[in-house]
Amino acid sequence: MPQTRRFPQSIYALPLADNRLRLDRVPRQADPLAERLHRRQRLAGAFRLFARLGFEVGVAGHFTARDPIETDHYWINPLGVPFSQLRVSHLLRVDGEGRVVEGDGPLNSGALKLHYHLQKARPEVVGIAHLHGLHGRAWSALGRPFEPLTAESAAFSGSQAIFRRHDLRDEQGNPERRPERLTRAFVDSFADNDLLIWQNHSLWTTGASVESAAWRSILADDSARTHLLAYAAGRPVIPDAALAAASIAPDKELADWLNFLPLWDRISAEEPDLLD
Amino acid sequence: MPQTRRFPQSIYALPLADNRLRLDRVPRQADPLAERLHRRQRLAGAFRLFARLGFEVGVAGHFTARDPIETDHYWINPLGVPFSQLRVSHLLRVDGEGRVVEGDGPLNSGALKLHYHLQKARPEVVGIAHLHGLHGRAWSALGRPFEPLTAESAAFSGSQAIFRRHDLRDEQGNPERRPERLTRAFVDSFADNDLLIWQNHSLWTTGASVESAAWRSILADDSARTHLLAYAAGRPVIPDAALAAASIAPDKELADWLNFLPLWDRISAEEPDLLD
Amino acid sequence: MPQTRRFPQSIYALPLADNRLRLDRVPRQADPLAERLHRRQRLAGAFRLFARLGFEVGVAGHFTARDPIETDHYWINPLGVPFSQLRVSHLLRVDGEGRVVEGDGPLNSGALKLHYHLQKARPEVVGIAHLHGLHGRAWSALGRPFEPLTAESAAFSGSQAIFRRHDLRDEQGNPERRPERLTRAFVDSFADNDLLIWQNHSLWTTGASVESAAWRSILADDSARTHLLAYAAGRPVIPDAALAAASIAPDKELADWLNFLPLWDRISAEEPDLLD
Amino acid sequence: MPQTRRFPQSIYALPLADNRLRLDRVPRQADPLAERLHRRQRLAGAFRLFARLGFEVGVAGHFTARDPIETDHYWINPLGVPFSQLRVSHLLRVDGEGRVVEGDGPLNSGALKLHYHLQKARPEVVGIAHLHGLHGRAWSALGRPFEPLTAESAAFSGSQAIFRRHDLRDEQGNPERRPERLTRAFVDSFADNDLLIWQNHSLWTTGASVESAAWRSILADDSARTHLLAYAAGRPVIPDAALAAASIAPDKELADWLNFLPLWDRISAEEPDLLD
Repeated sequence: MPQTRRFPQSIYALPLADNRLRLDRVPRQADPLAERLHRRQRLAGAFRLFARLGFEVGVAGHFTARDPIETDHYWINPLGVPFSQLRVSHLLRVDGEGRVVEGDGPLNSGALKLHYHLQKARPEVVGIAHLHGLHGRAWSALGRPFEPLTAESAAFSGSQAIFRRHDLRDEQGNPERRPERLTRAFVDSFADNDLLIWQNHSLWTTGASVESAAWRSILADDSARTHLLAYAAGRPVIPDAALAAASIAPDKELADWLNFLPLWDRISAEEPDLLD
Repeated sequence: MPQTRRFPQSIYALPLADNRLRLDRVPRQADPLAERLHRRQRLAGAFRLFARLGFEVGVAGHFTARDPIETDHYWINPLGVPFSQLRVSHLLRVDGEGRVVEGDGPLNSGALKLHYHLQKARPEVVGIAHLHGLHGRAWSALGRPFEPLTAESAAFSGSQAIFRRHDLRDEQGNPERRPERLTRAFVDSFADNDLLIWQNHSLWTTGASVESAAWRSILADDSARTHLLAYAAGRPVIPDAALAAASIAPDKELADWLNFLPLWDRISAEEPDLLD
Repeated sequence: MPQTRRFPQSIYALPLADNRLRLDRVPRQADPLAERLHRRQRLAGAFRLFARLGFEVGVAGHFTARDPIETDHYWINPLGVPFSQLRVSHLLRVDGEGRVVEGDGPLNSGALKLHYHLQKARPEVVGIAHLHGLHGRAWSALGRPFEPLTAESAAFSGSQAIFRRHDLRDEQGNPERRPERLTRAFVDSFADNDLLIWQNHSLWTTGASVESAAWRSILADDSARTHLLAYAAGRPVIPDAALAAASIAPDKELADWLNFLPLWDRISAEEPDLLD
Repeated sequence: MPQTRRFPQSIYALPLADNRLRLDRVPRQADPLAERLHRRQRLAGAFRLFARLGFEVGVAGHFTARDPIETDHYWINPLGVPFSQLRVSHLLRVDGEGRVVEGDGPLNSGALKLHYHLQKARPEVVGIAHLHGLHGRAWSALGRPFEPLTAESAAFSGSQAIFRRHDLRDEQGNPERRPERLTRAFVDSFADNDLLIWQNHSLWTTGASVESAAWRSILADDSARTHLLAYAAGRPVIPDAALAAASIAPDKELADWLNFLPLWDRISAEEPDLLD
């Protein structure tokens, strides 16, 4: 390793053979307490990155991480703390009843049910992110899924859903207003996809790690931006989805986890107070 | 509260019960002098944020706050001070005759009448903001109101007006040039809306607090940007306005005030000289 | 003046009466040497601002200021010095023959003739700016003038020209390649306008001061950006040019000079090494 | 040279006569070891610039430089080191068999063959860059070459190719999946062009120096951006390619090398740790 390297880069800690990465799945901390801290740190780091990417709109935006010990608990950012100031110690642990069992601060209670029921319905999920990135919101207004226009957006082929909340109706044909029905429809729409496009609202992503959920949030806003640009300028070529998928990493969870590493290295080096 | 928290975050000072925010209206300082200072500080902070958002175009842009003691007076930024350098001590207090009664510096006299008559016509208003944000200007050229394309723009449904200054005519059918008529038409057009889109010019917002007026300025430019992007890329889905409004906070003043808090926390921590 | 003001703001040095600015023309330094230094400083400051605005594209971009003493000489940035590092001492004074008579460094000889002949043809001009801002270049490819879509772009109504270099032909109908003919066509096209849109290339602006020429460069790129956004999103309303012009400052030189002041205050406070 | 110049500016070290640059080709270090270091430094500097330009997308992006001593070896960035932290000492030297022979760290093995075979097929090439800039990706989805809309994009006229990877078929008409065939098709498509637009993916550029390859990456993303903007806003004027080419520098390698100099000056002054 070069002696002049100033910051620890995560990639150098991964197993190599002949200078090729040899990693067949996302590593986890053996110690559950270390894994808990790991998730909380990545959650806080993701908010710092989201702040830089302009994903913060007032008090909107929440990102939860399942607790590795109490697996029906999850960690969430408190309401109203600026993303750019968020630290590990700000995070709240919430139990299945929506009670704060660790940490102190105001909850964004509006979104609790959605996170809780989605975490419950999908035991493989660790991270669930909902941010109000500009491009994701603008694209959501078009009510259309992503096409495999680029390698980045092709990663969502076959793993995205659209949620049309305004179209839900009750038994009398009136707009559905019952919270439990909206929550169920949201969970049903999401199904086992990585991405949910909430029409006329914004994007949600999930991941089997905090890292992959965070990366998919970034990638989804990026995909929205490339779609907006390409469709504004003309008529993009849409490759066959199966063909496009063939050039996507076979293990998306591993690939998306890996893609988050340089971002983590950068943010943890530049804003180490996020670890406090 | 985490001991490691470096900056005071406003949200932690608000009343909580069971980690839920319990606030039924925007809090005010009991002491009128404290309230005056509070408004001046938020006014200066808003200019610092506007500078970062690219809302500054030469000497254009003015934002006034009603004085809580002399309620026909208001505070305004002096002409020609860069938004990024603006401090509390720069602000001018102007009386109903347009005379500076506190502070020292050049007035932007062109806009005085508009602010004064709008403040007078709407006693519930505290903040009136007029900025030349890029997206607001570009959108204003289309001469159309915002649609509820996103949750953010839906907040303006039913509370926006369009002012077509170039269409005003005098009794002879010639372009209206009498200042008092233009002022009256402006105030009449604004009526009791939160937002006025001045066609081929830019946006104006109002609020019952400096915070909500500032937040609406930011949200209106953001809405203009999402509209520009979505309409450039295709044909956005426009939800029924009533349905969209149903998912908007019932107390918009409180919600918009709250949304400004993280921005205030960030700017006052990062640029504390604004308080001077 | 507030005691807490940290940076000198130019606006406070201008004549006021009853807190209204009383200035009927752009002030000049009485001492020619002071005026020379003034122009050189504003030239260097403008480059620092252009760097922040993304107007720098490799070694492209030149901005000249007529010397107030030797009025057929002008000051120009050397080729290849990054805009963000440019200082007063880098500037070169060039005589009417294109010889460097003060300062040391490489000239961008390609553009010398255009600046020299335009300065010669228009004795009222002090500053001539040609930058490769992104939006100005993109708009130039459409081959159309600015419309009065906003107050900012209305300022160019009646004072803009389009130069279609690729359409010039020699007596045999072949593409014109003689440098002296191209220079003459450029000067003739520019005539006495503030702005020249060089189709499929970029923008040029002039001013009776360095400040107004710099401000018009910034405003022209901004106008290009609002035009690109508005036309992408739909069909903008184009007000009658005469009407739009009625709301423009009667003394454009003074107004544009004034609009540059906050930018100067900001850049000279934040990057004082530009004065070296 | 001005005594107040704080940073060394590369342009002042080039040969001048009468303040005109006198340089008829790209200079090289006489000492091969100095040339090797020169290339490695420019490679590291380019990554720092790419980071600022938003060309970094997770672990995507690779840029290789031919070694001047072992001319079938090349230098490449390791996988997963953030562009903004990349230093000279991180770079890996890889031999023709894809083995790391100098430096230590993980290789991006997926792209090795493409770089190796392209370097092999084009002995005049030194730098090969493949970055995932936003605008390049969005434009690539349209499957069209650049037009000479601006002077910048005209530089690619006659020197660009489009690679439609998804259209490749094997002898049975099925999608081509054999790596060696894909590599050959890529090299054949690239031919001797400066730019390859990989449809629905992103851009590749080459140069006879690291500097020109880096500059073309920046210029290609810039061209994509101006194309996206101009086509979204209307119908751009497309000049005759031959005419447009006539206003392009006759020695493109020299011109592109020169255009990179101010960027190098800026990044090496502002982030000198890249040299470590």
